[in-house]
Amino acid sequence: MTRGPAGGRAAVPEDRAPEKRRRPGRRPGAADTRGEILTAARKVFAEKGFDKATIRGIAREASVDPALVHHYFDTKDGIFVEAMQFPVDPATVIPTILAGPREEVGERLVRFILTLTADSQAREPVVALLRTAMANEQAVTMLREFLTQAVLGRVAEGLGIPPIRLQVAFSQMFGVIMMRYILKLEPLASADLEELVEILSPTIQRYLAG
Amino acid sequence: MTRGPAGGRAAVPEDRAPEKRRRPGRRPGAADTRGEILTAARKVFAEKGFDKATIRGIAREASVDPALVHHYFDTKDGIFVEAMQFPVDPATVIPTILAGPREEVGERLVRFILTLTADSQAREPVVALLRTAMANEQAVTMLREFLTQAVLGRVAEGLGIPPIRLQVAFSQMFGVIMMRYILKLEPLASADLEELVEILSPTIQRYLAG
Repeated sequence: MTRGPAGGRAAVPEDRAPEKRRRPGRRPGAADTRGEILTAARKVFAEKGFDKATIRGIAREASVDPALVHHYFDTKDGIFVEAMQFPVDPATVIPTILAGPREEVGERLVRFILTLTADSQAREPVVALLRTAMANEQAVTMLREFLTQAVLGRVAEGLGIPPIRLQVAFSQMFGVIMMRYILKLEPLASADLEELVEILSPTIQRYLAG
Repeated sequence: MTRGPAGGRAAVPEDRAPEKRRRPGRRPGAADTRGEILTAARKVFAEKGFDKATIRGIAREASVDPALVHHYFDTKDGIFVEAMQFPVDPATVIPTILAGPREEVGERLVRFILTLTADSQAREPVVALLRTAMANEQAVTMLREFLTQAVLGRVAEGLGIPPIRLQVAFSQMFGVIMMRYILKLEPLASADLEELVEILSPTIQRYLAG
């Protein structure tokens, strides 16, 4: 949906000037522009991957001013998180998880991931993205780059541990979520959250101890 | 490719009577019948799952006598392993891995899985099945039932540990293989086998200790 640069650029948020663009049969301006930016972002992330996508490129794809993209979404991470319907923004969540006592960081991380994924509304978009990524090279690249930059790199740096240890920890949690919610292996699929916290926390703690 | 019961049943292996069925443009009889049984098996496993599929049902789908299926493949596990092009038969491999010292079973299992998957010819069919299973309900059911019956159940019983601990161990290895070969997270994707053995073995050993 690329319009020419002179075509439909909105220099100001549409919620300040909705009458100019609202057309019959379309949703009100603000939601529409935001939605158009997210649609453009999904296209740009899929085509270029996370690393090479830029706010400028997303703005161009959406035929809006880059300042408008910044107005709606603070950062590239933020756009990605919303475009992919992630339930949380790693930039917000990671510092909280890392903030407590170091000897319990494994348990905090395990409990956070299991609690979040127990909520089907929070889980579904992430599981859908993982399923797509397993079958699609473009989605794999995008997900790898986002995970590396916005999630794993950030945690490894915050803890001062070698990235491979964090990646192995992530593999454990990824595998458990896949087996619990996609393959639905019993008794894992129906297991109590506390039972899983007890089994998994020492593993994750050992990896994160460095 | 269902033929009527009176249609094309072969009561004896075709390699004993190839002249009866060999036609121009077809491969020699024996390979053909074996291949037809495997094609039928893939269809039956996909439709019925692993548990409900029977040698009789596969024979019916292939329009051959059940005795002929037994002639080519000993067991239902054996047919599945060949139909899915698994590089090894769990029925053969598992007893060997479980046979050594109990305090090193974690390392033996980690080393076996990493060595096997390092060979792309051995890895590709399994990774392909996993990718399909992530996106397809029928394939998920088939894989879950096979894993439970032929792999995980067998190991958990052999070690006398709760199935959930083995499933969490399997999740760890599954996650590592996915991150190493599909998502290709670096440095995990290029990591030396021995480095991974060192990181992973204590985890798997702890789960398998029960």
